Amino acid sequence: MKKASSLSELGFDANGAASGFFRPVADDAGATPTSHRRRLTKVSVIGAGNVGMAIAQTILTRDLADEIALVDALPDKLRGEMLDLQHAAAFLPRTRLVSDTDIAVTRGSDLAIVTAGARQIPGETRLNLLQRNVALFRKIVPALAQHSPDAILLIVSNPVDILTYVAWKLSGFPVNRVIGSGTNLDSSRFRFLLAEHLDVNAQDVQAYMVGEHGDSSVAIWSTVSVAGMPVLKSLQESHSSFDEEALEGIRRAVVNSAYEVISLKGYTSWAIGYSVANLVASILRDQRRIHPVSVLATGFHGIADDHEVFLSLPARLGRGGVLGVADMELTEEEARRLRRSAKTLWENTQLLGL
Amino acid sequence: MKKASSLSELGFDANGAASGFFRPVADDAGATPTSHRRRLTKVSVIGAGNVGMAIAQTILTRDLADEIALVDALPDKLRGEMLDLQHAAAFLPRTRLVSDTDIAVTRGSDLAIVTAGARQIPGETRLNLLQRNVALFRKIVPALAQHSPDAILLIVSNPVDILTYVAWKLSGFPVNRVIGSGTNLDSSRFRFLLAEHLDVNAQDVQAYMVGEHGDSSVAIWSTVSVAGMPVLKSLQESHSSFDEEALEGIRRAVVNSAYEVISLKGYTSWAIGYSVANLVASILRDQRRIHPVSVLATGFHGIADDHEVFLSLPARLGRGGVLGVADMELTEEEARRLRRSAKTLWENTQLLGL
Amino acid sequence: MKKASSLSELGFDANGAASGFFRPVADDAGATPTSHRRRLTKVSVIGAGNVGMAIAQTILTRDLADEIALVDALPDKLRGEMLDLQHAAAFLPRTRLVSDTDIAVTRGSDLAIVTAGARQIPGETRLNLLQRNVALFRKIVPALAQHSPDAILLIVSNPVDILTYVAWKLSGFPVNRVIGSGTNLDSSRFRFLLAEHLDVNAQDVQAYMVGEHGDSSVAIWSTVSVAGMPVLKSLQESHSSFDEEALEGIRRAVVNSAYEVISLKGYTSWAIGYSVANLVASILRDQRRIHPVSVLATGFHGIADDHEVFLSLPARLGRGGVLGVADMELTEEEARRLRRSAKTLWENTQLLGL
Amino acid sequence: MKKASSLSELGFDANGAASGFFRPVADDAGATPTSHRRRLTKVSVIGAGNVGMAIAQTILTRDLADEIALVDALPDKLRGEMLDLQHAAAFLPRTRLVSDTDIAVTRGSDLAIVTAGARQIPGETRLNLLQRNVALFRKIVPALAQHSPDAILLIVSNPVDILTYVAWKLSGFPVNRVIGSGTNLDSSRFRFLLAEHLDVNAQDVQAYMVGEHGDSSVAIWSTVSVAGMPVLKSLQESHSSFDEEALEGIRRAVVNSAYEVISLKGYTSWAIGYSVANLVASILRDQRRIHPVSVLATGFHGIADDHEVFLSLPARLGRGGVLGVADMELTEEEARRLRRSAKTLWENTQLLGL
Repeated sequence: MKKASSLSELGFDANGAASGFFRPVADDAGATPTSHRRRLTKVSVIGAGNVGMAIAQTILTRDLADEIALVDALPDKLRGEMLDLQHAAAFLPRTRLVSDTDIAVTRGSDLAIVTAGARQIPGETRLNLLQRNVALFRKIVPALAQHSPDAILLIVSNPVDILTYVAWKLSGFPVNRVIGSGTNLDSSRFRFLLAEHLDVNAQDVQAYMVGEHGDSSVAIWSTVSVAGMPVLKSLQESHSSFDEEALEGIRRAVVNSAYEVISLKGYTSWAIGYSVANLVASILRDQRRIHPVSVLATGFHGIADDHEVFLSLPARLGRGGVLGVADMELTEEEARRLRRSAKTLWENTQLLGL
Repeated sequence: MKKASSLSELGFDANGAASGFFRPVADDAGATPTSHRRRLTKVSVIGAGNVGMAIAQTILTRDLADEIALVDALPDKLRGEMLDLQHAAAFLPRTRLVSDTDIAVTRGSDLAIVTAGARQIPGETRLNLLQRNVALFRKIVPALAQHSPDAILLIVSNPVDILTYVAWKLSGFPVNRVIGSGTNLDSSRFRFLLAEHLDVNAQDVQAYMVGEHGDSSVAIWSTVSVAGMPVLKSLQESHSSFDEEALEGIRRAVVNSAYEVISLKGYTSWAIGYSVANLVASILRDQRRIHPVSVLATGFHGIADDHEVFLSLPARLGRGGVLGVADMELTEEEARRLRRSAKTLWENTQLLGL
Repeated sequence: MKKASSLSELGFDANGAASGFFRPVADDAGATPTSHRRRLTKVSVIGAGNVGMAIAQTILTRDLADEIALVDALPDKLRGEMLDLQHAAAFLPRTRLVSDTDIAVTRGSDLAIVTAGARQIPGETRLNLLQRNVALFRKIVPALAQHSPDAILLIVSNPVDILTYVAWKLSGFPVNRVIGSGTNLDSSRFRFLLAEHLDVNAQDVQAYMVGEHGDSSVAIWSTVSVAGMPVLKSLQESHSSFDEEALEGIRRAVVNSAYEVISLKGYTSWAIGYSVANLVASILRDQRRIHPVSVLATGFHGIADDHEVFLSLPARLGRGGVLGVADMELTEEEARRLRRSAKTLWENTQLLGL
Repeated sequence: MKKASSLSELGFDANGAASGFFRPVADDAGATPTSHRRRLTKVSVIGAGNVGMAIAQTILTRDLADEIALVDALPDKLRGEMLDLQHAAAFLPRTRLVSDTDIAVTRGSDLAIVTAGARQIPGETRLNLLQRNVALFRKIVPALAQHSPDAILLIVSNPVDILTYVAWKLSGFPVNRVIGSGTNLDSSRFRFLLAEHLDVNAQDVQAYMVGEHGDSSVAIWSTVSVAGMPVLKSLQESHSSFDEEALEGIRRAVVNSAYEVISLKGYTSWAIGYSVANLVASILRDQRRIHPVSVLATGFHGIADDHEVFLSLPARLGRGGVLGVADMELTEEEARRLRRSAKTLWENTQLLGL
């Protein structure tokens, strides 16, 4: 008996069975007209590793898309992941799941999420790694843009700020349709730490990490509040020997918590999955919520007009992508740090020769 | 101080405040391009009475649409209902809510739900009432069809089977895009009664009321099952003096339960709200689930080919509307009852002179 | 054929049918042990009018309780509402619904919501109306407390602040287990107006109405922010002739919007339903979110220690009820207004002779 | 600067900050009384591998528990997984997450899910592997039962049927409180294959795999239906040369699909995660839905009264665990296969010397 993964491979005629069971109400019925199919929501995830799959699975559980397309270079892994999701069909709202190593499977996406990235080779310089990632994006991004010219691109691969810039350049898309996941997750970690400390719900904590995703991210202490009420003062009063270092300690704890997870379990997956699904909901359902994500930061907070850099700032997201960037008040020190990050990023970007 | 329901009426400049707070990432950003707005899901509800509002509110709570448009002939009632829903914005995902007495507010709907209907005047004949409803549909349906030529029409007004036919004729829509709520709710009441009796979850009970919505509906006993396991035999064995009358008693209890609610609270609202929202989810999210709804029944179960009648049969619903009708096996008696209903409906329909 | 609303009334033996269909795995199985039943969540709603039913239905749609008990003085209306909800069983997760005119049906509630209240008789003084409501609460509250000694009481009836105090006194419950819905809905209306103006999601707007629910509520402008970023300045800059009156205009628009809905549709229902369901979720699922609700305000913001008044302040709610009250910073004017409300409320309260 | 994962480690005093920000409404407030804490829902997951984590994460996304406890023998992996989930706090309803290598962290669980299991050593016999798993269960199960004497045990580790029996014996729990995940997932795979073929929603397909989880599972063709309508006939008519082998081909495709996923991606995770979360919802929310899960099958379908074997049969699940087992009609061949499995399982079980 041959191995099969569908009834047609076993000799059952799908049209036969369906037509014995269902009949159209009229000759033209049964097929969803193109105009209606166009209105179904399709999300593509490029890269079916731990991060890509945590994102795809969270989007599926949250019922955020009518169709999910998965793309990866490894056909076995890819098909295994797709089947594993499909087998849960009886426990989920119906969602079409497709997968292919060919990026053409993403055709007609509303949103394409890129998680693919080269892995660092021992001894490799950061620049060399970045150049290999740019080479990878040259294969992925123009193909994505061609198959889904109206899509929004959401970049998760690291270094996320530079690669979001790269995706913008390679796609030819307007700048409001290219977004990096940036510090959305860093900000969630920041909020979690504060929420645990104050024993409140993290959804009631407003707190931003902005700037470059990673070590040089900037914590905006002035906006830290609980349900709109500033909390910095009572935080300071609770520290016996409070000084600037104390707050910097919190910022480093946030940054380190990513490394801690990696050192403990080998990678991060769940939190980035929830974080990106959260962005997907805001974008596709036109929620107009504010998220710290990587956007073109030129002209904000004194970043030079000729520096085309992407950095995380609080952005209002909707069906059109980035609908606006909040012009938040920063201290001079915070703005200075942002500009320093911008300068470094711009210098690195120019080495790429795009 | 004047009364105002928006800040602009109080002299605050929305663009001013927004531009002071948000800045676009680029000149062309901020506006959602037409191609993206087209992909947002819009549902219109015609008639803001108890039924229409229970439907609209359930759609809102379940987050099934990106925009909901309400239409009613009474402007005050209509605006009051819209404001009452809008005031809950902080507790709900963002949904655009609009309302107008002018049906043009429904422009671009994906789905239009008609709950409007004339009320019976004491002493009025059924035919006269029906003719007044047809007159009302002449105002509503062509205007709906004109403003949303790709929409699916979901008719809830009673008598639902005839009015779904009327809506089909007046809209000029293909038959798979005109659906009556039919016996979807009757079937739920049937399942509730059986589920209570067997102490199982009603979602695990498969049971259909089909045919004409109302007194002459037909219970299909042969399909009554719990999680796919036929339950009729153990039901019969649990009745000391079981005969056909015993099952007919259950059917009548189902039919009467609608009248009972009306006699007790004056109208029905919650259950029809959930029932229609359930259909909306299947249609808009392309769920391909099976629902007993009113569809063109010509040719099914021996209904004459020249009788263009709408009756409830188990239909597979998706983004294209009715994707197919299950050709279920009926007993000869069940089929005979269906044909009798069809004949009566067709005779009544011809009196309308459409 | 007799009218029936269950199969047992029609001669079917529930135990017979169930035992023919299901068998226990062992002699002791089948019954849920008391220790497990205790862990199911029960919510009672006292008063099945427009407000009570909107609350009950939203709790049901949101799947916040395992059992809902409805109580009302009018048996027909009550039974009609219960049946109307029950008929939707096939579209909802299973929830046990019970109703009775006898408050004993609430036995073992985790949360009891009181929406019942006397209606104003034309020409009646406010004090007289209040005394009639106190008389009503004397019937309801001690009975509730007796049947559910561990419950949390959530008072929605108006005037909510005084009646929450009355419920506290009559229940003998610790003060953290008696909560008034207070300005939770007023604050949502405030956030909606601001969110519409700034075109952001109302869930990202932090803004509080505190103090007495109604005309004398106090808007806390200093905390008005979007995603934690203060928004007052850009709001002021967007008004050509900004002065204090301009902000007071917004506060009055918020207060008036409740009256506007009442004048347009005759009552408010949907928004209060969502507002209270939102509190229910925070309490029963121990969410520790911050809500402006009516709590014992003695000692806050200079309210005299011998004035036992309930006023809305931002409170952290969880499974234990009020877990804490935020000691928010107010301007001297804001605090003065609060104290003035407190004094008036205390004077009115003393007239009740509790 | 030292590494820290909470603000208290950085010298901030949690009580200090919280008390500066929140104040109790009265002396006794703030703490959730024991009686209320008892009502919060706690789920424990033993084993933080791919299966355990997919289960825990799906329970978290679906908001099915107020507290989740994770247990694993590897402290680093365990802590990494917990932190990775905690970092998403801002995107989720508040859920308490705890983890420990000590099973005492599960104290007071309502439901404990065991996914831990020994891995096969190359060349090891099945019996030897089973005995190592029994040794593992001797460490886990009595400790679980001691810390949560009222809990329901849900066994996922393989071979699931024998290990569910082992857990029953070792726990001393009544038989309705020990459940194996059994063929719940196999049945979902069966439904997915049929749903794809007929282009309907898998939630509308009723179809059971029962008996032993794995190669010898039995497909119950007589119950295969779509929304209660038997589908076997139209399936047979769609096969040009239909014979019994054709249906057996489908059963084997279902069984093989698990192996296929394992061969492609190395393990299964997502589908078992959704499958178990689905059981958790039915149990904890007292849903009384029917699931094919592993229960004590003695006396069903002619299984000998002295054979204490667990096999999957359609069971009605609720807060009390297994509330009943459907006495479904089987063909003589189906019943014979069940009895054969039961006999083999019982023989294997007796080798364990429990």
